[in-house]
Amino acid sequence: MQKADAVVIGGSAAGPVAGISCRRRYGDKSVILIRKEKRVLVPCGIPYIFGTLGSPEKNLIPDALLQNNGIELVEDEAMEVNRERKVVSLNNGNTVSYDKLIFATGSSPAVLPIPGIEKGNVFTARKDVAYLKNMLDAVNDAKDIVIIGGGFIGVEFADECKKGRNCNVTIVEMLPHCLQLALDDEFCSEAEGVLRDRGIKLLVDSKVEAILGDNQVSGVRLSGGQELKADIVIIGVGMVPNNELAKRAGLEIGPGKAIAVDRCMRTTADPDAFACGDCAEKVSFFSGKPSRLMLASIACAEAHIAGANLFHTHYQNPGAVGVFSTIIGERAFACAGLTERAARQEGYDIVLGESTAPNTHPGGMPGAVSTKVKLVFSKHNRMLLGSGISGGKSVGEIANVISACIQSKMTAYELSLFQMGTHPSLTASPIVYQLVNAAELATKAK
Amino acid sequence: MQKADAVVIGGSAAGPVAGISCRRRYGDKSVILIRKEKRVLVPCGIPYIFGTLGSPEKNLIPDALLQNNGIELVEDEAMEVNRERKVVSLNNGNTVSYDKLIFATGSSPAVLPIPGIEKGNVFTARKDVAYLKNMLDAVNDAKDIVIIGGGFIGVEFADECKKGRNCNVTIVEMLPHCLQLALDDEFCSEAEGVLRDRGIKLLVDSKVEAILGDNQVSGVRLSGGQELKADIVIIGVGMVPNNELAKRAGLEIGPGKAIAVDRCMRTTADPDAFACGDCAEKVSFFSGKPSRLMLASIACAEAHIAGANLFHTHYQNPGAVGVFSTIIGERAFACAGLTERAARQEGYDIVLGESTAPNTHPGGMPGAVSTKVKLVFSKHNRMLLGSGISGGKSVGEIANVISACIQSKMTAYELSLFQMGTHPSLTASPIVYQLVNAAELATKAK
Repeated sequence: MQKADAVVIGGSAAGPVAGISCRRRYGDKSVILIRKEKRVLVPCGIPYIFGTLGSPEKNLIPDALLQNNGIELVEDEAMEVNRERKVVSLNNGNTVSYDKLIFATGSSPAVLPIPGIEKGNVFTARKDVAYLKNMLDAVNDAKDIVIIGGGFIGVEFADECKKGRNCNVTIVEMLPHCLQLALDDEFCSEAEGVLRDRGIKLLVDSKVEAILGDNQVSGVRLSGGQELKADIVIIGVGMVPNNELAKRAGLEIGPGKAIAVDRCMRTTADPDAFACGDCAEKVSFFSGKPSRLMLASIACAEAHIAGANLFHTHYQNPGAVGVFSTIIGERAFACAGLTERAARQEGYDIVLGESTAPNTHPGGMPGAVSTKVKLVFSKHNRMLLGSGISGGKSVGEIANVISACIQSKMTAYELSLFQMGTHPSLTASPIVYQLVNAAELATKAK
Repeated sequence: MQKADAVVIGGSAAGPVAGISCRRRYGDKSVILIRKEKRVLVPCGIPYIFGTLGSPEKNLIPDALLQNNGIELVEDEAMEVNRERKVVSLNNGNTVSYDKLIFATGSSPAVLPIPGIEKGNVFTARKDVAYLKNMLDAVNDAKDIVIIGGGFIGVEFADECKKGRNCNVTIVEMLPHCLQLALDDEFCSEAEGVLRDRGIKLLVDSKVEAILGDNQVSGVRLSGGQELKADIVIIGVGMVPNNELAKRAGLEIGPGKAIAVDRCMRTTADPDAFACGDCAEKVSFFSGKPSRLMLASIACAEAHIAGANLFHTHYQNPGAVGVFSTIIGERAFACAGLTERAARQEGYDIVLGESTAPNTHPGGMPGAVSTKVKLVFSKHNRMLLGSGISGGKSVGEIANVISACIQSKMTAYELSLFQMGTHPSLTASPIVYQLVNAAELATKAK
């Protein structure tokens, strides 16, 4: 029987961060992290194994993070939690006892109830090195690749599968647009244009009804009857929380099928058990209502809170803002906060501010990329609610500038006076800096 | 005699922005912008003419900005302002009458009282296309280039002069470090290393005592007696406000030799005359004391305020935060807010948080650059005061993330829960995102 003041179950984004947060705040408390994986994949890096990185081994979270922060690693699967005795049972028969417990069990790819899904060469973005190695071999051998789901995962897989390969890639998306849950229509259309320019075929408003073939997949049939050839099918239609262990331990499961927690990341059922990351229920920053967002960055913020709150309460979770970014070919897309569509759905009366300018100045600097920022404000008080962005690589951190402004509840008035640093090679011109320009326009919008 | 509701004097960063801000807020008011230049240079782009851009014509602010916003352009020099009659007299004898006036007359390169400064091939970063064309020819012909001043301008000139040229470049800096007014010592040392790697010679703690030669410069003599060969000398030791016109108009001049203004950007002497940009006095965001910062981004924020406040008061200037960024070779450096040194000089007890991580994740993504963030907090209340950053090109917008957090007075506690967007190609990993990590360390620092 091993023993620690705090035990964390889960080794991906949230687990280590929760452990580190605890160790930093409570230097005298011991932390054990239990995980079943020998090697842990960077979750957001998985699509990049298939083009940019070239192998799962290049997409690992280094264990030095744990060692450097005095966290003991136990490599085994947690099978049961006895909350009365405060003991975690492992697959090898050993047990680990705890004072405080953190569930950071993550999520798994959603499985669709499509006939034929069990066939060979049908894959998901499973966080498993050996599985992804097989998948990489299959992608390398494929001539026709069908991707089910045109969200971030699907789009990133499509773009990466094209890199350095002479294969046909088709995305099948149920909704009218790819990326529609994350971006407003005009950005979706722009992204779809980039995907098409890269030779990727898009079938939107389309549903896969069956996966065809004998043992191995040979194609898919769409609900309209159309059949597509496929040597391999990749399913990227979202993730579901890993809630089984918590459920067996008698913890409450919430409306999103994740572990129910309060604003302090404590499980609603047990003050000594916490949960964070994809396995924990979330609420929206903007409405307080349940949110289905699952992002490594949200997981890490929750993990900071959980780790810090273990022995004394320090923080409350303000709710998930939702900040995404991605890049397709050379064009980056991002959203911080609510899209225009989501803001309207939440019942906000809104005003918009939009501004497009090169990401360098003068615009003739080599490598200049036209960068578009759309800001969404509440009409009533001009508070910043969200955004859409497209441009070059700086889009990733521009989304974070906007996220900072959202989190501090800046208004269009305040943002129109924003003091940014600018440099010819690194940013837009101060005269046309998109955030400020868009905000100023929004102060006057009717 | 021409006539407008608002007259702006000056065509660089602040002037157009003030005019646009006025036009956007007061659509029924007419705006005339008076400037003496036929073509206006992007001020921060001037060093980049000498390598990256290749000519002054590639570094111009497009006049379409004015036209698109309904601003009438008058190309002539404003010689006198009669505040009683509310009339500006031009060099060509014409006059322009106004209801509200904005001084945006900018700044000029400081001239050092060094013997020999009048010799041929001694240049400054003058905002004048013909002058810079001559200077570019001289740089192209030079074998030995001496740059006086190792601040941003001097360092950027040095780096650009090296691009595509086989010449010797030496920076002579009075202080112990290059960039010392903008960055903490460790970042200065790092930048100096990059400059040296690029073959630039640095003489710090050194002062030029005389510029040698007959009509043309042939070298410089340092205060220690050492002589350096030079075909050309570039002086980059700062800028001084263009205050002559305002002075002649009887406006109050402040401690920084700029036009004295209140928090609404109104001149202290005349409620119908405003000033913004390098020609206007500034106060620090952190202390309210006079500040000598001169940055195009500050100028633009002030211009927004001045333009909006012309006919009704809308905004107060919160004071200059100071956000710089630059890139030397492939390494970018930035600072938002106070350096550690400046914070101590302001009397703050401080704590630091530092974090270094690749700007992509996993770290093995192609093109990954180790990126260092140092955050400076007030010890008393853990409020964010400033930073230093070095890394790849994303540093430019990371500085703006930090600036947003400073402007909204975030504490280390809040910043440790920051919800950022992350992406393998665009940002650091959420597990080690530098701002959050540095902030968390600072919550516990003693």
